[in-house]
Amino acid sequence: MNLEDIRELVVKNDTKIVLLVIDGLGGLPRPETGRTELEEADTINLDRLAYDGLCGVTVPVALGVTPGSGPGHLALFGYDPLKYRVGRGVLEALGIDFDLRKQDLAARGNFCTVDSQGVITDRRAGRISTETCVALCEALSGITLPGVQVFVQPVREHRFLLVLRGEGLVEGIADTDPQRVGATPLPAQPEKPEAQATAGLINEFVAQARERLADKHPANMLLLRGFSKWPDLPLMGDVSGLNAAAIAVYPMYRGLAKLVGMTVLPTGTTIEDELATAQERWNDFDFFFIHYKTTDSRGEDGDYDAKVAAIEEVDHALAGIRDLAPDVLMVAGDHSTPSLLAGHSWHPVPFVIWSRWCRRDGVEAFDENSCYAGGLGVFPATSVLPLALANAQRLMKYGA
Amino acid sequence: MNLEDIRELVVKNDTKIVLLVIDGLGGLPRPETGRTELEEADTINLDRLAYDGLCGVTVPVALGVTPGSGPGHLALFGYDPLKYRVGRGVLEALGIDFDLRKQDLAARGNFCTVDSQGVITDRRAGRISTETCVALCEALSGITLPGVQVFVQPVREHRFLLVLRGEGLVEGIADTDPQRVGATPLPAQPEKPEAQATAGLINEFVAQARERLADKHPANMLLLRGFSKWPDLPLMGDVSGLNAAAIAVYPMYRGLAKLVGMTVLPTGTTIEDELATAQERWNDFDFFFIHYKTTDSRGEDGDYDAKVAAIEEVDHALAGIRDLAPDVLMVAGDHSTPSLLAGHSWHPVPFVIWSRWCRRDGVEAFDENSCYAGGLGVFPATSVLPLALANAQRLMKYGA
Repeated sequence: MNLEDIRELVVKNDTKIVLLVIDGLGGLPRPETGRTELEEADTINLDRLAYDGLCGVTVPVALGVTPGSGPGHLALFGYDPLKYRVGRGVLEALGIDFDLRKQDLAARGNFCTVDSQGVITDRRAGRISTETCVALCEALSGITLPGVQVFVQPVREHRFLLVLRGEGLVEGIADTDPQRVGATPLPAQPEKPEAQATAGLINEFVAQARERLADKHPANMLLLRGFSKWPDLPLMGDVSGLNAAAIAVYPMYRGLAKLVGMTVLPTGTTIEDELATAQERWNDFDFFFIHYKTTDSRGEDGDYDAKVAAIEEVDHALAGIRDLAPDVLMVAGDHSTPSLLAGHSWHPVPFVIWSRWCRRDGVEAFDENSCYAGGLGVFPATSVLPLALANAQRLMKYGA
Repeated sequence: MNLEDIRELVVKNDTKIVLLVIDGLGGLPRPETGRTELEEADTINLDRLAYDGLCGVTVPVALGVTPGSGPGHLALFGYDPLKYRVGRGVLEALGIDFDLRKQDLAARGNFCTVDSQGVITDRRAGRISTETCVALCEALSGITLPGVQVFVQPVREHRFLLVLRGEGLVEGIADTDPQRVGATPLPAQPEKPEAQATAGLINEFVAQARERLADKHPANMLLLRGFSKWPDLPLMGDVSGLNAAAIAVYPMYRGLAKLVGMTVLPTGTTIEDELATAQERWNDFDFFFIHYKTTDSRGEDGDYDAKVAAIEEVDHALAGIRDLAPDVLMVAGDHSTPSLLAGHSWHPVPFVIWSRWCRRDGVEAFDENSCYAGGLGVFPATSVLPLALANAQRLMKYGA
């Protein structure tokens, strides 16, 4: 069901909904034991919620597709990630908490190495240190262009963010990154006539940058991709009638929440801080997106035991969330991050929803195999928001 | 799979298919026992069918969406209810067995109360009695409009049906009901230029009605919504090759069957009457839609025990349906109606299909949790028709 159809059905009431996103939630069994991280972890609170609630596994984008953080979260917020796309430049800006504005054009940048003929010999400039990246970005920040402001912000190692700010900047510029060594960087080409002037500005930026980087080998050139502007997503408040707040430690997730119009609440650096923020602001909002990152980070590290420990940490915090007595409580993941793969994966993600009206199934533990057998089966993550609204009795009947 | 794709695969044979729709089939557990109405009811025949057949739970519209009767039934007949929409005026006409024709424009009406300034003070005119409604409709039936016939038919309490009959009436008129008190009724506005003349006729009707209702406080004005004409649905016979009959006690369900081109068979007022009708006409059709209403009515009443009793009544009738020895027998619901919610709900609906070729699963009882674990899982109700055709060996292979 698309967002416009949902919007037609929405009614408001004073119920409260919590969506706890455990980043990279699903895993894979460790060969020695045949148990996944979730099966191994001691999760009394998650298991109790599964027992009381209705379980299933979500498919964030499509079966077989490994989601990035952007698509994984947008789906949980109700947005079809194949329809609503967020450019890489914008995601990079969100990830470093850059104050991106609607008129800005953002791009993901790489410092790279070129030879004396200008041919790329290393697309990542030997993965220079983040300190070097900071210094190079400072050098490039002095570049001036007619009619626009230039921001060059370090991200990590060879990665940086370029933002042009000004009136009339247009999306639809092809990447300057040819994605292979042995080629020269491409000029910024407009993909439509309206983007001609913007492409000219970018080429002027690149020309000036090339001069300033000429003696900075191995980082003596740069590549740009994912030119994009703030995407015009329907606002979650308009679609769902929810006054939604986001509580997240990492900038990327605060940024994704901002994209859909949630109010981002200042918080600390731990899940306890996030819980305290939810408690303090409990009366001010009717939807709380609470993000827990460590499960994904330890999965990305390939550290099975540390991911188990992270699951146990968030399980402990779940008790505090239940104490807030939301009308609807959901635990979801944006994607799986099995520590055996040390990265995001395509595996459907365990999910549980509890409300007074959820109609519990027979699931008694919160793990991958138990959730497969749940009453929601294998289902698209974009159904999470309508399910939440339904359980909060915030959706009218469709048709007479 | 859409209807056009199904049509390409259809072959005819002499199999017989029965779809028993138990209206409002799914429920919620009563807190005292933790058991749903289906779990509580003594259902030897449904359980036996579940044991012999293949089970699952249907999603009528989308996860989280509570269907009205129209969308719920259209989905079971194979029509995507988000694509094929039936206006409220048309549904109101079907619900009172009004002989709606293709040229007619129908609207749902409310009698309402306005103050001396014409501002709405009660959108339902204090829920006047049905007797009063009948008298008011008679008073309005005398209204004459140029070139069209006017029908004003009572429905119940403050609700009535308006039908204009004549050449050239056009859909696409905005509701006159502002959906709130404190506002004045809106003029009928055309949503496209071709609807201008039709809007003029409606405004003329409203002007005359206002005069006739002026001294009928509290029902001294009316509101109209859901202007709609007979929807141009593909006919079920064309799509599926089935010669389909409908057996239903209530007009709404006979009307929905008529919309898709089923032959509506006269019947009595009980499930036994419906069963007798099926027996009598068994040789004349190859698809029988049999509708049982009481489960929904008792669910809407919020009467758990009465809904349990209704389930037991229809379970008893199921034995008679099996005696007819259809090649394919399905039991479905158009939506859930938990007595705890006293209304339709979004919960997926238990479903079972039996045929010689169904490939039974391990389900041994017909209830919500047992069906969750069935071989069909959680699946769209629009798949019920293709599954029926397949089990009747009425669908060819797709592709070589």
